[in-house]
Amino acid sequence: MKLSALLPIIGNASVAEHAADPDITGIASLHDALPGDLSFLANPKYTRQVETTRASAVFVPNDYAGAAPETCVLVRVDSPDKAFAAAVPHFTLPPIQRKPGIHPTAVVGENVTLGEGVYIGPYAVIGDGATLGARVIVEAHVVVGEECVLGDDVHLYPMVSIRERCRLGKRVTIHNGTVIGADGYGYATSVTPQGIRIEKIPQLGIVEIEDDVEIGANTTIDRARFGATRIGHDTKIDNLVQIGHNVRTGPCCGIVSQVGIAGSTHLGTGVMLWGKVGVAGHLTIADGVEVLANAGVPGDLRTPGQYIGSPAVPKREALRIFHMPRAVENLKEEVTKLKAQIKELQDRLNKEPDA
Amino acid sequence: MKLSALLPIIGNASVAEHAADPDITGIASLHDALPGDLSFLANPKYTRQVETTRASAVFVPNDYAGAAPETCVLVRVDSPDKAFAAAVPHFTLPPIQRKPGIHPTAVVGENVTLGEGVYIGPYAVIGDGATLGARVIVEAHVVVGEECVLGDDVHLYPMVSIRERCRLGKRVTIHNGTVIGADGYGYATSVTPQGIRIEKIPQLGIVEIEDDVEIGANTTIDRARFGATRIGHDTKIDNLVQIGHNVRTGPCCGIVSQVGIAGSTHLGTGVMLWGKVGVAGHLTIADGVEVLANAGVPGDLRTPGQYIGSPAVPKREALRIFHMPRAVENLKEEVTKLKAQIKELQDRLNKEPDA
Amino acid sequence: MKLSALLPIIGNASVAEHAADPDITGIASLHDALPGDLSFLANPKYTRQVETTRASAVFVPNDYAGAAPETCVLVRVDSPDKAFAAAVPHFTLPPIQRKPGIHPTAVVGENVTLGEGVYIGPYAVIGDGATLGARVIVEAHVVVGEECVLGDDVHLYPMVSIRERCRLGKRVTIHNGTVIGADGYGYATSVTPQGIRIEKIPQLGIVEIEDDVEIGANTTIDRARFGATRIGHDTKIDNLVQIGHNVRTGPCCGIVSQVGIAGSTHLGTGVMLWGKVGVAGHLTIADGVEVLANAGVPGDLRTPGQYIGSPAVPKREALRIFHMPRAVENLKEEVTKLKAQIKELQDRLNKEPDA
Repeated sequence: MKLSALLPIIGNASVAEHAADPDITGIASLHDALPGDLSFLANPKYTRQVETTRASAVFVPNDYAGAAPETCVLVRVDSPDKAFAAAVPHFTLPPIQRKPGIHPTAVVGENVTLGEGVYIGPYAVIGDGATLGARVIVEAHVVVGEECVLGDDVHLYPMVSIRERCRLGKRVTIHNGTVIGADGYGYATSVTPQGIRIEKIPQLGIVEIEDDVEIGANTTIDRARFGATRIGHDTKIDNLVQIGHNVRTGPCCGIVSQVGIAGSTHLGTGVMLWGKVGVAGHLTIADGVEVLANAGVPGDLRTPGQYIGSPAVPKREALRIFHMPRAVENLKEEVTKLKAQIKELQDRLNKEPDA
Repeated sequence: MKLSALLPIIGNASVAEHAADPDITGIASLHDALPGDLSFLANPKYTRQVETTRASAVFVPNDYAGAAPETCVLVRVDSPDKAFAAAVPHFTLPPIQRKPGIHPTAVVGENVTLGEGVYIGPYAVIGDGATLGARVIVEAHVVVGEECVLGDDVHLYPMVSIRERCRLGKRVTIHNGTVIGADGYGYATSVTPQGIRIEKIPQLGIVEIEDDVEIGANTTIDRARFGATRIGHDTKIDNLVQIGHNVRTGPCCGIVSQVGIAGSTHLGTGVMLWGKVGVAGHLTIADGVEVLANAGVPGDLRTPGQYIGSPAVPKREALRIFHMPRAVENLKEEVTKLKAQIKELQDRLNKEPDA
Repeated sequence: MKLSALLPIIGNASVAEHAADPDITGIASLHDALPGDLSFLANPKYTRQVETTRASAVFVPNDYAGAAPETCVLVRVDSPDKAFAAAVPHFTLPPIQRKPGIHPTAVVGENVTLGEGVYIGPYAVIGDGATLGARVIVEAHVVVGEECVLGDDVHLYPMVSIRERCRLGKRVTIHNGTVIGADGYGYATSVTPQGIRIEKIPQLGIVEIEDDVEIGANTTIDRARFGATRIGHDTKIDNLVQIGHNVRTGPCCGIVSQVGIAGSTHLGTGVMLWGKVGVAGHLTIADGVEVLANAGVPGDLRTPGQYIGSPAVPKREALRIFHMPRAVENLKEEVTKLKAQIKELQDRLNKEPDA
């Protein structure tokens, strides 16, 4: 495909006059590109890679001021990321499509309601009384519990399991191995003359997931002790995340891989938790809070902004902590100087009487 | 259901004379309750929510001294948590019950011993030579390996997989997606003239889980290199926990979500590891140790009590570390003062000769 | 089995003259051993356990200088660890062997290519167009996506799922519940007058795993946005690990349990990441870097060696940070002394005029 044929697809783009019009045969990152490949510069960290790339063409920001090899045509665009995303499907295989139908090995329970165009894959198990909306895709080896409700266009990848009575909104996508609605961790522990006594607190609520939520692989979202654990619409959750019983997230939250949120904590709108963040239970996290990777949150965060560290503090305070080793070194040096000065004063005073 | 009809169920409770006797139609937290709902105050953090709740009745501790809206009846009880737990089943659907029987799609191997009242769900696979005790529930899509032994009343949720020869005691419950008995991470690495050489150490032991253990979803417990990885009776393990080969836990331990315990570490009785705690390998953790969330444990903990931080230290020491930024600020101020005082002394001494 | 009969199996070993020749009936750690057991001393931490062990024989290093009970024969060997590993199979059951064949319940798609000696277990699902090399073992309940390619001697344990078009080299082993090729976490977020707008970035690449890689249980490795997420040959990955889209690891890396590596990060050769390490996205980690447990890596690590802490720093620097509380205490004491000395100087100067 000629570069010139590709440009109309990506919208507002400009190419230097007299530039070559190479054949584009593939896509790759700046570092990996070979002749024939199209690449892009979205992250300024990679700017210097443009200068040495072997790509035949690179999407760069309109204000890109750097150079490029002679073999590489620079295409100036408003958003290199979006332009590249528009070009990618022309050089990759499309995702697998599922045709409506129920595989003969699927076990569909009694009183199940199926919308039009539903796909149910090999060995999927749909519990009694479940409801699947239109165009729902339930892939191989998915287990949907009794009386679950799945909205239109839900897509469950293989090995997903959903316990009884949970409710998923429209266009919810859940990746392989994720578990929705297992019992939360809830026990009443007491110390008796006979030893430690641990009783299970029944977990009788459900999980409710609103529209347009996507959840990654091998994540776990626990059912509520009573009522519902709730994930707000448009929230995106990554792999291996733990969400405890009775947690609620607002809409449009981002919850990155290996985050853990303990029971009954509430996230506001647009909260962003980066990789491995841990949040204690029964907390309130305000709209617009962003917690950076690896942080631990032991208390409410009531003001929007960036937090960092364990225990998490506003980023500005954290920088002070990170610079503390330097501050302590400086103090040591100052104290050493002061000691010398005092010694000198003492010596002078001790001499004075003799003077 | 009238509140007065509910009270006998929950035992020792007192209501103010002349209080109303509302119809209770549901249950909810203080914050979410609507008229008709019953709620409870167990965590003092939520005390102020009683004053504004819309619940029709609230269980409070006997010594509760606060107010409540006119529309809300306060019910004084010994344990609001337990009273509420006793009331919840009257307003929620019961958990799904499995009737004994073997689904026609289940694959049961040769020489399998099944106790009375066993349930085996769709597509479950039971390996040759396995033994299942009375009333064992093996849900859809569970894989039980060859020669495994499951005690009476074991309950395995969908997608659980147990590798060959592992042994589970009575009343062990394991939630969806958990893996028992995969190979531990064990390699012999050497550097040779040809490069790094990595050889697998065979993992030929098993996992033994004692009575009354509950394990959450998507957790992994590795088989021993030889002998057994062992989980003590009444220990409760949450979701996404990693337990390495040859680990042993005492009875009555609590291991919360995303904890990782490296190989050959031994936990005593009643050890509590909160969310995301990491414990290095070959360590001894004493009876009654409690490690707070997010901590990392690089060495033995031989004294009971609370530990915190990474590397974990006794809580009291940790507070000193957390207060260090303040201490450094104080030192800076003191050093500044000392400098001024020394300057003044120097000035005075320098003048003296002239005096 | 007589000890003397066992020794030829383990190679270069020496036993004191006139030592007894006990019957060996089992194997155990020094701490757990009973009479009849063989044990070994590999980790010097356990040296004192040799003195009190009840084992009938113990493999010790050639230079072992300690004592042992009279009931215990010390066997001096070059590597107690290797000698013990050679002895273990004589006292444990062998791993389960799968005989070639396709279980009648397996669903094998159209245009699937199967090498000789393949085993496909109950309820496994092989997608259209997939290729399985010779002697591949696909256990019960595995789902292999469309057009995947599995090299000779690949072994997939139950519940593994591999999304479409991913490629595994020869002798790749993957344990239960692991997900290869789920979509990475990739969204374009913008704030519009109508609120936060979150669009999914299609994830159209694959995962490529080179020869001799082993991957633990419930781990997730995301498919690339475009191109491939790549795991280098001989790399060993533990349980519950997250590897983001477009990550690349060199050969011979070790990635221990609960590690998370964010998107587009590249690891060199022989990189070792211990338990729970988090690595941010778009980073370069040099050959021979070792990051100790629990650390967080926010930036490139360009020099081989050990790193520790969050943010991770070279181990030497970290020790300074760990010792900071001590340093601050010392400074406090010094400042207190200086204050006293200045006070004394001031007093003397104040008196002088009167002298």
